[in-house]
Amino acid sequence: MSMFIDRWEALCTSSPNLRFVDINLRSVGQVMFQNNPLTGLLFLAAIAWGSLAAGAPKVFSAGALAVVTATLTALWLRVERPTLNAGLYGYNGVLVGLALATFITPGPLLWVYVVVGAAVSVVATLGTANALKPFGVAALTFPFVIVTWILLLATYGFSGLSGSSLPAATVITPFELLPAGSLGFGDFIKGVLLSISQVFLKGSGVAALLLLAGLAVSSIEAAVFALGGAILAIVTAHLFGAESDLIVGGLLGFSPVLTAIALGATFHRPNLRVAAYAALGTIFTVVAQVALNVALRPFAVPALTAPFILVSWMFLLPRQSFEPSENGRGDVNAGAE
Amino acid sequence: MSMFIDRWEALCTSSPNLRFVDINLRSVGQVMFQNNPLTGLLFLAAIAWGSLAAGAPKVFSAGALAVVTATLTALWLRVERPTLNAGLYGYNGVLVGLALATFITPGPLLWVYVVVGAAVSVVATLGTANALKPFGVAALTFPFVIVTWILLLATYGFSGLSGSSLPAATVITPFELLPAGSLGFGDFIKGVLLSISQVFLKGSGVAALLLLAGLAVSSIEAAVFALGGAILAIVTAHLFGAESDLIVGGLLGFSPVLTAIALGATFHRPNLRVAAYAALGTIFTVVAQVALNVALRPFAVPALTAPFILVSWMFLLPRQSFEPSENGRGDVNAGAE
Amino acid sequence: MSMFIDRWEALCTSSPNLRFVDINLRSVGQVMFQNNPLTGLLFLAAIAWGSLAAGAPKVFSAGALAVVTATLTALWLRVERPTLNAGLYGYNGVLVGLALATFITPGPLLWVYVVVGAAVSVVATLGTANALKPFGVAALTFPFVIVTWILLLATYGFSGLSGSSLPAATVITPFELLPAGSLGFGDFIKGVLLSISQVFLKGSGVAALLLLAGLAVSSIEAAVFALGGAILAIVTAHLFGAESDLIVGGLLGFSPVLTAIALGATFHRPNLRVAAYAALGTIFTVVAQVALNVALRPFAVPALTAPFILVSWMFLLPRQSFEPSENGRGDVNAGAE
Repeated sequence: MSMFIDRWEALCTSSPNLRFVDINLRSVGQVMFQNNPLTGLLFLAAIAWGSLAAGAPKVFSAGALAVVTATLTALWLRVERPTLNAGLYGYNGVLVGLALATFITPGPLLWVYVVVGAAVSVVATLGTANALKPFGVAALTFPFVIVTWILLLATYGFSGLSGSSLPAATVITPFELLPAGSLGFGDFIKGVLLSISQVFLKGSGVAALLLLAGLAVSSIEAAVFALGGAILAIVTAHLFGAESDLIVGGLLGFSPVLTAIALGATFHRPNLRVAAYAALGTIFTVVAQVALNVALRPFAVPALTAPFILVSWMFLLPRQSFEPSENGRGDVNAGAE
Repeated sequence: MSMFIDRWEALCTSSPNLRFVDINLRSVGQVMFQNNPLTGLLFLAAIAWGSLAAGAPKVFSAGALAVVTATLTALWLRVERPTLNAGLYGYNGVLVGLALATFITPGPLLWVYVVVGAAVSVVATLGTANALKPFGVAALTFPFVIVTWILLLATYGFSGLSGSSLPAATVITPFELLPAGSLGFGDFIKGVLLSISQVFLKGSGVAALLLLAGLAVSSIEAAVFALGGAILAIVTAHLFGAESDLIVGGLLGFSPVLTAIALGATFHRPNLRVAAYAALGTIFTVVAQVALNVALRPFAVPALTAPFILVSWMFLLPRQSFEPSENGRGDVNAGAE
Repeated sequence: MSMFIDRWEALCTSSPNLRFVDINLRSVGQVMFQNNPLTGLLFLAAIAWGSLAAGAPKVFSAGALAVVTATLTALWLRVERPTLNAGLYGYNGVLVGLALATFITPGPLLWVYVVVGAAVSVVATLGTANALKPFGVAALTFPFVIVTWILLLATYGFSGLSGSSLPAATVITPFELLPAGSLGFGDFIKGVLLSISQVFLKGSGVAALLLLAGLAVSSIEAAVFALGGAILAIVTAHLFGAESDLIVGGLLGFSPVLTAIALGATFHRPNLRVAAYAALGTIFTVVAQVALNVALRPFAVPALTAPFILVSWMFLLPRQSFEPSENGRGDVNAGAE
């Protein structure tokens, strides 16, 4: 694997065009924190499969257009090259493109929206990174969420754009007690897999396996925490009595999956204490996902990855050191991305 | 009084078990900014009385479970000992426990909720403190509010948990002009006392007197500002024409009481200019309390102490120096807790 | 022009009363970022004309009372003189006064509200400036928006105050497709002008011309970007299919106008790259304006200048350097106000 990466890197160094491709692939990989072009390629395959399986190839096109737009915008804004080359200015863009094409009825203005949204996502990424610098935490997918929320909310005031799959605004009412719908083994497996694929807004088991493969080629730990986070999320949501449809569709698990990877394998070196900390964060992300689903009902927009961002910031801001040879609270893991 | 405290401190130094008790008592005292175990004991008595008087002893148990959970979590996270010993990692936990048991119907999952909420409140306290360090202001009860809001909102999506006293979601409509319901002297006194006891979510005059006693044994100024803040809040709310039931029940006064103590006696040394500044903040907290009650109607959750946090941050961030021997704007009161 | 300013400055230096007048005039000018008493005078004339034309002279009085209250509060709080003299503690106050008198039915408590709101706006300005210092961005009109939102929301809970022109709370529903109402030339001109006058909550072409004159005497670039921003906003809103009434009334253009001046002529030195950056920000402010109009429907309060603040912070936080002789990312424009 690493030989493949080395040869590819050598090719990119000699060709600006391949470097451009490399940046865009790494941007796709960074959605799950992986700075790796092969991961990006496998993630792209997952997006393609998921889009085609759902009969919506335009969603894939929108994601591709968005990530390229984001990279071009970053170049125009003369951002720092090492950060750009690591894909850190493009992962929000690809998510903006996927989300807009998922929730808005296709039409010419959708593509204007995708380009504007992807370009603004780079500005928002630069701004968020600067705003968070004093605190030593990463921007995560906050730029994606804030830009997409603004664009989706505005569709309710623009006749040229209309939501095709946006949630309807409803009044918050207590949850109806459902008959004890116990989760069978098949539903459990489906829920776990779709929790992973919904990170890219896809409900597809094949896409989930491609994503896990993409994680594994870059970091076994990341793949393990993704799977473990998904399992923990499904179990937690079921024990608290969440709606089975949401659980099985992966709609309560994608944010917890991201929290698990972030807290367990990305911003801390994994060990037992780290795993316990990540587990607490993952459980609380399930609660936050349900809470934000409820809180956003009056606004008729989806929560996107906001629960992951909220809880991960909460758990990263303490800048806990979990290193074994600890003397007091260290700073070893501060500001890592 | 101080002799009692000295002997108690000596006992705690020699016994880890008593130190553990001491930390939890000080945590209860810190809800109103007092680092004092006797204050904590009197506050605990107030919670016990208020819970029993309301026929809800489980609320007291939830508060006790939560503060112990918070302290144990803080120990597991290896936080700095002086801050832990001052009770600064536990006051949010006790409030989380009291609020969850007040607003959610009792059941086995309530206790899971209390433990998870109390543990996460410690993470949130560490995170908030780090986030606010560059600005020299304290976390106040923000960790309590954010964690509790998330947990309460999620009850609308979990069939295992249901709100018993949560407000219903309603559309915001202009206030109906009520017949001029003048506030009698008895109602005035009741409103003042319950404004103090509602800091701990209790509607009890006896609890209020215990709380005032708890403040007085630690700081006469704090007790004076609590009482003065409650009186100013009742008068302000009545003059603007707020609903009498809310005024008499103390539901518009508990946040202003906290603002008055914070601005008048905790983060500034009290004098005439400070009192004027605290009075402006207290009046604006009444307005903010009514505003947040309105703004949260679509979400069907209570405002908790959010109005206090919002206004106190607004008034603490300027880091005004009110010292008499002032040469320009000093930093004497910066970052105090 | 500059001779007039020099003589006026000499007069102010010798007379504390004239200095007080000067501070208040500059405060009015700072609503559009101009530290210039003549600009303030012309803006004041625009407010007066707009208020009288709308049959609401009390709105002008409330603005005047508010700016004087803000200046007196700033003096009482012993703020730094250079900042005070530049009008930077008063521009939020004047907006608070105009907004409260525009949206609330006149009555004795309105004036109490104006005085309290203007006084608190100074505290909020000091606090916001301190909170933003590490990030090198300005407070903009955030203090105005947060204080006014709180005061307006609270009118729904106070019988002594009632909104006369507040939007009604409505459920968010998809936008009805309207018959293609093409915008005529007269409507276009009207929309452009009112987009400028709505910065001061006025729907008046004469007021718009006075405001443009006020900008021009201080900075031709600011006037050009204001006009350009208004034109771009009208075109963008129309292309996306926004409601024609809102476009022609200037209600989708006032925030973009402020963004255009801020990004194009205030915090960056204007050039072609800056103009492109400001154009992207201006377009996104139109989207954000529509989004916030939608998002605030459940709360029954207007968006005020929140879209401008949100997008301008997003675009200023990256602290982009657009200087031609650039070596890496510079800091030349950091923290400028």
